[in-house]
Amino acid sequence: MKSPRIVIVGAGFGGLQAAQSLANSGADVLLIDRHNYHTFVPLLYQVATSQLEPEYIAYPIRTILRRFSGKRHNGKPKVQFCMAEVERIDFTAQIVKTDDAAIAYDFLVMATGCQAQFLEVHGAAEYAFALKTLKQAVALRNQIISCFERASQETNRLRREQLLTFVIVGGGATGVEMAGALVEMLRGKLRQDYPTLDIEQVRLFLVQSGDRLLTELPQKLGVYTYKKLRQLGVKIYLQTKVSEVTPGSVHLQNHEVIPSATVIWTAGLEANSPETSEELATAKKGKLVVHPTLQVLEQPNVYAIGDLAYLEQNGKPLSGVAPEALQQGVAVARNIQKQLQGKAPKPFSYFNKGRLAIIGCHSGVGKIGNFTFTGCLAWLMWLGVHLVYLPGYRSRLLVLLTWLYTYLLGDRAVRLLLSM
Amino acid sequence: MKSPRIVIVGAGFGGLQAAQSLANSGADVLLIDRHNYHTFVPLLYQVATSQLEPEYIAYPIRTILRRFSGKRHNGKPKVQFCMAEVERIDFTAQIVKTDDAAIAYDFLVMATGCQAQFLEVHGAAEYAFALKTLKQAVALRNQIISCFERASQETNRLRREQLLTFVIVGGGATGVEMAGALVEMLRGKLRQDYPTLDIEQVRLFLVQSGDRLLTELPQKLGVYTYKKLRQLGVKIYLQTKVSEVTPGSVHLQNHEVIPSATVIWTAGLEANSPETSEELATAKKGKLVVHPTLQVLEQPNVYAIGDLAYLEQNGKPLSGVAPEALQQGVAVARNIQKQLQGKAPKPFSYFNKGRLAIIGCHSGVGKIGNFTFTGCLAWLMWLGVHLVYLPGYRSRLLVLLTWLYTYLLGDRAVRLLLSM
Repeated sequence: MKSPRIVIVGAGFGGLQAAQSLANSGADVLLIDRHNYHTFVPLLYQVATSQLEPEYIAYPIRTILRRFSGKRHNGKPKVQFCMAEVERIDFTAQIVKTDDAAIAYDFLVMATGCQAQFLEVHGAAEYAFALKTLKQAVALRNQIISCFERASQETNRLRREQLLTFVIVGGGATGVEMAGALVEMLRGKLRQDYPTLDIEQVRLFLVQSGDRLLTELPQKLGVYTYKKLRQLGVKIYLQTKVSEVTPGSVHLQNHEVIPSATVIWTAGLEANSPETSEELATAKKGKLVVHPTLQVLEQPNVYAIGDLAYLEQNGKPLSGVAPEALQQGVAVARNIQKQLQGKAPKPFSYFNKGRLAIIGCHSGVGKIGNFTFTGCLAWLMWLGVHLVYLPGYRSRLLVLLTWLYTYLLGDRAVRLLLSM
Repeated sequence: MKSPRIVIVGAGFGGLQAAQSLANSGADVLLIDRHNYHTFVPLLYQVATSQLEPEYIAYPIRTILRRFSGKRHNGKPKVQFCMAEVERIDFTAQIVKTDDAAIAYDFLVMATGCQAQFLEVHGAAEYAFALKTLKQAVALRNQIISCFERASQETNRLRREQLLTFVIVGGGATGVEMAGALVEMLRGKLRQDYPTLDIEQVRLFLVQSGDRLLTELPQKLGVYTYKKLRQLGVKIYLQTKVSEVTPGSVHLQNHEVIPSATVIWTAGLEANSPETSEELATAKKGKLVVHPTLQVLEQPNVYAIGDLAYLEQNGKPLSGVAPEALQQGVAVARNIQKQLQGKAPKPFSYFNKGRLAIIGCHSGVGKIGNFTFTGCLAWLMWLGVHLVYLPGYRSRLLVLLTWLYTYLLGDRAVRLLLSM
């Protein structure tokens, strides 16, 4: 009897976990992604600030799936990988159409994540730098280094200031960690690299539309973060929106114009939905509405997880962090196996182990249950938790060595203009 | 009194060494390169075969020059770096014109190295993969991985064979090490990554125009290398030239056509000469003819070193290896200082400490004086010497860890399709 075929689209945290959790389901599992590697997204900002090599956070999917390469009874490997771009999903025919083939499925897991959204701000998509993919992180790194290179040769004072002004739009975790990492970069050995440049001329701005930073965390943590970044020299604008981005400046809604060659966009995200034969119900940011079981409405054999799916818990939408996607990956695998056994899927409930956010310069914030904490402990915990979550011992060793190098020697080794 | 200005174009082995050796000359030293990093070229083939991260062999020039950032008596750093593309050199006005500025010099060192030359073979420049720059090494790595990805999904047998056939053109050190490294790659954990692919289907070809491999080394070493590679499964064509390269095949002058999606070009090099106001005398491969003092003919204050210069010793041209460029960098610094003191420059003489070439699979060849040796000792010596020559302790540690990982675990971690 032919094994049922489960297709998973997207090898982010959710999709990859689902594939691994389904390895012993007895079904044929096929994982599809447009890249042949999984990106450890939480450390993208460290690639962008020349701290980590891009390869340290990009894991060949085939290597991760290697332990499932043992054959099952029908001679096929338990989990297969296919590198392809998904063009369209036909729910009626139950086919995933890629740039290369038409793949039939019995069960489908959509885990294509999210991408930067520019909130219809004029010029943002063309001139601002997003930070959601590895390619974007490397482009941003090259931009930052390029600005220092050009500034060191620039005789025009205004132009030099523009090159040395960095504006981060968005005061969530990504914006905050970028700001802190840029401060760390400036405080390190950068001065010795640019002896003709006055590093004091560098200006960092953080523009947040809300009334505090880190709105997904309790207010006092947002206030701590604000004070810490101010102390580190970052100029913070709260309750301020961006109205336009040009190649050399950012315009705020309060009519202020900041000349800057580098505007870093962390302010908006939207779901990365593949094209489908029938339109699916969506919520905020284009995320797909799902049943508590993670099944897509009207399609009982199709699931959506991770940043692609809209889920609420205790009346609030989930934050969009890796542990949520990982738990959903496990849950969807369990639910599909229930369906294979003719049983009903169970609703998903996220077990919140806590939340951490890194600021930088030995500082961070955290919340576990009702207990909040700040400072060096939160900083170390953030680093430690992410070290543990990295796939594989090789990566953990290399990233740990790099962090020791950075934090003990104050140096960043990847100050390279290598384009991708 | 204004210090004399020495401009060095090109931060390869020769140019970078010259800059460091001139740091205490009392002159203003300016090093120019189109990239902000120095590439450790001998290990490019390991980037191409997914063994090393590109960043491990790309060193930020500013970091290397950091110890010269101390100021001299006129307030300027001893050695400055400028990232720019040199467009033209005007010998009469003594100006180096870049894409950004016009830089006056009192002394000039041209160290722009060499690039791949396609020997007027039809299609080679468009379809073959060269291996002289980091960008090319990464492109080749992506091509190799891409071929395995596509082959694992390819149902057409002929097309699959084409994807799994790799042809190396050129049987010098670079061609030999690429062939050996590809064999190492295939013998490693690749099978587990592609469980549906029959790795035995992979075919490796090495095409050499001369009558033996490694013509710059004694005949018996060439014979040993030939036998070793044949043992490893590489099909070698001696006294064979390529007549054409197409997107899917390589045509040999003996009328044989090998279907292959990946033709790796290591067969020809030519000097990378900048445009100059007066034409300079050139020898084979467009290399500039220089006096034994390394001064360019007719331009007593202009020097050419490294792969850009044509030099003979004992009636034979120098090979074009890193130690030659390093010694020339030291020599040119000494000669310029002599000129600054009103003395005559001295002729350069290369002190040949020996020559090593790596084959792979724990095998290599070497020659020190009249003594030749082969096998594991030569292999270990090659690795050891290159480890010592790497700039900086961080790089040495990371490369050493990677080699231990590869050779003890048989794995290659950088099997990523990340484009540059």
